[in-house]
Amino acid sequence: MTDLVVHDASQVATPTDDSELVVIEDGAVAIDDGVVTAVGPTEEVTRDHPPENATDAVDATGKTVLPGFVDPHTHAVFAGDRADEFSAKLDGADYQDILAEGGGILRTVRATRDASRTRLVENLLAQFDVMLAHGTTTVEVKSGYGLDAETEVKMLEAIDEAAGRHPIDVVPTFMGAHAVPEDTSADEYVDRVVDEQVPVVAENDLAEFCDVFCEEGVFSVEQSRRVLEAGTEHGLKPKIHADEFERLGGAQLAADVGATSADHLLQSTEADVEALGDAGVTPVLLPGTAFTLATDYADASAFEAADVPVAIATDFNPNCYSQSMEFAIDLACNGMRMTPASAVRSATVTAANAIDRTDGTGTLREGALGDLVVADVPDYEHLPYNFGVQNVQTVVKRGEVVRRD
Amino acid sequence: MTDLVVHDASQVATPTDDSELVVIEDGAVAIDDGVVTAVGPTEEVTRDHPPENATDAVDATGKTVLPGFVDPHTHAVFAGDRADEFSAKLDGADYQDILAEGGGILRTVRATRDASRTRLVENLLAQFDVMLAHGTTTVEVKSGYGLDAETEVKMLEAIDEAAGRHPIDVVPTFMGAHAVPEDTSADEYVDRVVDEQVPVVAENDLAEFCDVFCEEGVFSVEQSRRVLEAGTEHGLKPKIHADEFERLGGAQLAADVGATSADHLLQSTEADVEALGDAGVTPVLLPGTAFTLATDYADASAFEAADVPVAIATDFNPNCYSQSMEFAIDLACNGMRMTPASAVRSATVTAANAIDRTDGTGTLREGALGDLVVADVPDYEHLPYNFGVQNVQTVVKRGEVVRRD
Ligand SMILES: [Zn+2]
Ligand SMILES: [Zn+2]
Repeated sequence: MTDLVVHDASQVATPTDDSELVVIEDGAVAIDDGVVTAVGPTEEVTRDHPPENATDAVDATGKTVLPGFVDPHTHAVFAGDRADEFSAKLDGADYQDILAEGGGILRTVRATRDASRTRLVENLLAQFDVMLAHGTTTVEVKSGYGLDAETEVKMLEAIDEAAGRHPIDVVPTFMGAHAVPEDTSADEYVDRVVDEQVPVVAENDLAEFCDVFCEEGVFSVEQSRRVLEAGTEHGLKPKIHADEFERLGGAQLAADVGATSADHLLQSTEADVEALGDAGVTPVLLPGTAFTLATDYADASAFEAADVPVAIATDFNPNCYSQSMEFAIDLACNGMRMTPASAVRSATVTAANAIDRTDGTGTLREGALGDLVVADVPDYEHLPYNFGVQNVQTVVKRGEVVRRD
Repeated sequence: MTDLVVHDASQVATPTDDSELVVIEDGAVAIDDGVVTAVGPTEEVTRDHPPENATDAVDATGKTVLPGFVDPHTHAVFAGDRADEFSAKLDGADYQDILAEGGGILRTVRATRDASRTRLVENLLAQFDVMLAHGTTTVEVKSGYGLDAETEVKMLEAIDEAAGRHPIDVVPTFMGAHAVPEDTSADEYVDRVVDEQVPVVAENDLAEFCDVFCEEGVFSVEQSRRVLEAGTEHGLKPKIHADEFERLGGAQLAADVGATSADHLLQSTEADVEALGDAGVTPVLLPGTAFTLATDYADASAFEAADVPVAIATDFNPNCYSQSMEFAIDLACNGMRMTPASAVRSATVTAANAIDRTDGTGTLREGALGDLVVADVPDYEHLPYNFGVQNVQTVVKRGEVVRRD
């Protein structure tokens, strides 16, 4: 008996190894033991997997089935939020005012240091609920609001505990080098990250990746290299926040150290794009950040022109407070002018590449994770065309219907 | 016995006549016979209206209650959509290519002429469902994809029939002068609008407003004036699409004829803003159109500086396919840089002004329509701060819970 059959979808749309996006008209998907066992025309799939004999079934008539979304860049674990700063900025306060009043990232650091691990777990579980309800079935979460060994470990332990209590799949990233704490210089702090934080994180197996904010006024290319190389020595794969506000050389560093991903990339040049492509680094673009800060978007067309597939992510954090990958797709198309097919690929299989999940995560094919969404649209193009509304209505995680219309 | 009590909200936030937005902490609303009978602190409201004795109750603990949203500018009745053109544009097709292949607005005109009234009613009811689910409790709908008397009447009859079959309140606007049909000149077509369409619409009491697209290459200021004056003669109040791509003088015309609203206003000057303010014309800004066309937003700060409150609307149409006023609020803040309080006011009471509903629609006060939304956010500022996700979860229309979390 099949565990779940999703049938009669007007489209099943999924990226594959060979093409940007394959569309199966009148399609179906069967899932057993959390893994996809059949994808194809409804007639064929239901011959071997009749819905009436399955443990569960979803009639997707008139709707579109896509792989579950993969969000490869979030800072989702923290205490407090900064809605008041959002309002203050819109009311004319400038960033210096907000900093002078103790606002900005260091405020989140203080709140996160003060929070218990239990509180962080509860906060994160609530965010996972929103993410999953909007179609994200795999998410990367970074630490980085501790800026000391104790709190960074607490954050990563909270990620681990929340992951164990929630259906969503979670990829933990250590990002002690997210900002320079108030009491020290960048160089001194990098010493602490390298000598204290990386070893304790690695020894306790708390993270898969090590990330760094390589940016003018934060960590230099050389400081960032020290952090990433320390990570690599301890078995943490490198990721990097690169070239967001200034072209400091983060993309080149990513290529040099063989980073899994380089993220932001608003200032990247043609040479940077080429270097990332040659080195097999997955670029991750974060359109939500540009949207809420009202800046320009990253130039997705430069990557397209160089034939380097990009991932997109929410960048969910207190300064970019959106958990929805469906909305990231809206922004990729309406804002960054990507095609709907490219945007769907960016939010699924390329996003999975950006967190080194190359086992079929982000695709619907035999043997891949049984993660999918059913959107109330007749085809995948309608997802970003019908922007700003939630079209994802049913979400399946490892074969379980975790949200049902 | 009270019909409905919504209680224990972390905030009830509503514009009032005297202030931009009033916030009642730990608030409640009671509704009887479709009309608000009490708004205030939960303790006070529930003394007279105990939830346990009410016919229905909503526990809004931790959530925010706002007036139902008013969407004062949509083109929601049509046949077909143009998702394929959206994709084609993102794939590099220019607007001339699309027109050469029979695309653009005249394609929607052909599809709408070919559609039965029944089909239009069904389409519109489906859009009303999405709007209401996203918190819109009053909506304006324009005709204008007929461009001949027969189809314009069919569209307005469809609006009337759909309105009668749906809880949402509907304000119908005649917009025969939406585009120039293929077979004629603008002057000749204005003759038909004035001589044939306006009279038949008015005689059959099919519309409350008359609108015109005053724009370079569409209808001139003089042609627009003829349309609006013909409308006024027949009892249809004037509205105008003004100064979207070129500053043709539509805002000045709106002031001159005493229009209820002037909409778009991307090219308006300080003098235009002042003229609208002096004449009591409500400006309606349409950030979704700028978002999906990737153009600049209207300059909301110019209206703010002149103390002229603006409304916002979705502009829902086949070329701007978003039904969500919650997302219009997201855009007003993140895109147009309005404060959350201004954006909420723009989406409620000022939006009601833009369709001449000055009876309390868009506010929560005794005697106003019992229309409200419950959003899963701790305060109204979180609505646009937490952008791109649907926070509205419960919707009440005239005292009935039409969507429940
Ligand atoms: Zn980040
Ligand atoms: Zn319009």
